[in-house]
Amino acid sequence: MRLSTGFVRASGYAHKVRRVLFALTRGKVDPKEVVRAAGELNQHIFEKLGELGVEKSDVIRITVPFTIEDGKIEWDYENLKIEVYKKSEEEKLAMAMEEIEEREKALEEQIKELEELALQLKETSEKILEKLEELKQEHTSLKLRAEG
Amino acid sequence: MRLSTGFVRASGYAHKVRRVLFALTRGKVDPKEVVRAAGELNQHIFEKLGELGVEKSDVIRITVPFTIEDGKIEWDYENLKIEVYKKSEEEKLAMAMEEIEEREKALEEQIKELEELALQLKETSEKILEKLEELKQEHTSLKLRAEG
Amino acid sequence: MRLSTGFVRASGYAHKVRRVLFALTRGKVDPKEVVRAAGELNQHIFEKLGELGVEKSDVIRITVPFTIEDGKIEWDYENLKIEVYKKSEEEKLAMAMEEIEEREKALEEQIKELEELALQLKETSEKILEKLEELKQEHTSLKLRAEG
Amino acid sequence: MRLSTGFVRASGYAHKVRRVLFALTRGKVDPKEVVRAAGELNQHIFEKLGELGVEKSDVIRITVPFTIEDGKIEWDYENLKIEVYKKSEEEKLAMAMEEIEEREKALEEQIKELEELALQLKETSEKILEKLEELKQEHTSLKLRAEG
Repeated sequence: MRLSTGFVRASGYAHKVRRVLFALTRGKVDPKEVVRAAGELNQHIFEKLGELGVEKSDVIRITVPFTIEDGKIEWDYENLKIEVYKKSEEEKLAMAMEEIEEREKALEEQIKELEELALQLKETSEKILEKLEELKQEHTSLKLRAEG
Repeated sequence: MRLSTGFVRASGYAHKVRRVLFALTRGKVDPKEVVRAAGELNQHIFEKLGELGVEKSDVIRITVPFTIEDGKIEWDYENLKIEVYKKSEEEKLAMAMEEIEEREKALEEQIKELEELALQLKETSEKILEKLEELKQEHTSLKLRAEG
Repeated sequence: MRLSTGFVRASGYAHKVRRVLFALTRGKVDPKEVVRAAGELNQHIFEKLGELGVEKSDVIRITVPFTIEDGKIEWDYENLKIEVYKKSEEEKLAMAMEEIEEREKALEEQIKELEELALQLKETSEKILEKLEELKQEHTSLKLRAEG
Repeated sequence: MRLSTGFVRASGYAHKVRRVLFALTRGKVDPKEVVRAAGELNQHIFEKLGELGVEKSDVIRITVPFTIEDGKIEWDYENLKIEVYKKSEEEKLAMAMEEIEEREKALEEQIKELEELALQLKETSEKILEKLEELKQEHTSLKLRAEG
């Protein structure tokens, strides 16, 4: 398999790597391993970007082959490629990528709010089941959890 | 402490013992222990009812002291009392208790339906959180469960 | 059709009439009409109980035929029957009915708590849908409610 | 106020206009009016793009001032600006914008699935409240909706 970040502002490459890796491996790899593997690759890329003198506002594009063995992601660092588009040369591209970053932050904000509501929902659901169990215990002969 | 079933049809004493015990010990004793202790007492009462020649449609009233030690319910069988009201002598009482049993069955039916809905609710809540996690993984930089 | 309250403490006849009427007419009559018809009948019974010198702790049993016409409940007052069991004569019955009343209050308390949770649930569900609509409006091309 | 689409593929300008307008006017304008106003502006832009010979894969950037009066959005068409970046000249930009479109489709798919779950949730919540009302009607003296 091959991970390709597409165009991304250098400032946001690490998140992009992780997201793409999650999308590529959904259902195939444990999320903890995705987080670990993305972290490992990102560290490697970080060093390369330093060597290449890439700046935050430059746009880059990274591709790297990988394999999944026994649920573990192994990067083929030999074949890692990093394309760099300097802001000074690809001004419009750099501006567009900056806009994308802004928009993603707005999306994150909303998803975060949604998540808080979903956690409230879970809590309420659990309280309802708890209260129903109490009702069953004290007012019915229905099978209880404790009878499992 | 003292468990008192109140008036109850002999046919339903076991459930009544358990319900009353749950209500009396709520928050103090593990539900599994309540189930166990009720079962133990009910077995004891069952034998006594046999000895007393009690019939299903007779009405009885049971009281028994108990203690809770280290989360365990201990029955004071020495002081167990069973009053028996023969249907032939307390006809109206027996009829009233039969009605109560009917009504409780209707209540149980409705609570059961409510529980099924609450289980659906729990499942949907979990799916929503799951789907949100996926959204976070693939489209945001928000903290993931796998980063716990 | 015929409404029969079964044995009930005189103090609680009105609620019992309403509950039984709800159970008998579920899905056939509008809840508002059930409330109205129960109120009308209860007023009528109230006067009769006064005439009969019934006391709160006596036990009574009421039966009354009725018809449903065009969604309206009509009581056949001619054939209303009220049986009265004086506490002094049916002591055990009166005591049993008092116990039932107590237990119903405990049940009510728990159902009330459950209802509060269910209302919270509804509110959270609505907020989730609202937030999702916002997400759709600002981050997708999905069909919106406003496009109905 | 001023709507600015940022860089966007010509193929997707209409959705972008609407999203940005929703984000800008959240809480200030009725969603139906947002949909209407976006539709009106998009029609206008559509004609301009035709005149300018813009192709789907070109990248454009639109800005237009507007006012909100009595809850209605009025476009200042006189000051509408459309910048066009031909794919042939800004190749990397065009490719990046195409990627963004792809990613947005994936996001939409997931939000759609989330919405289906949220609608299920709503339905289950309503069924729970319905069932509880039934329980209250037939087993309690609690205040009913029909008594509202």
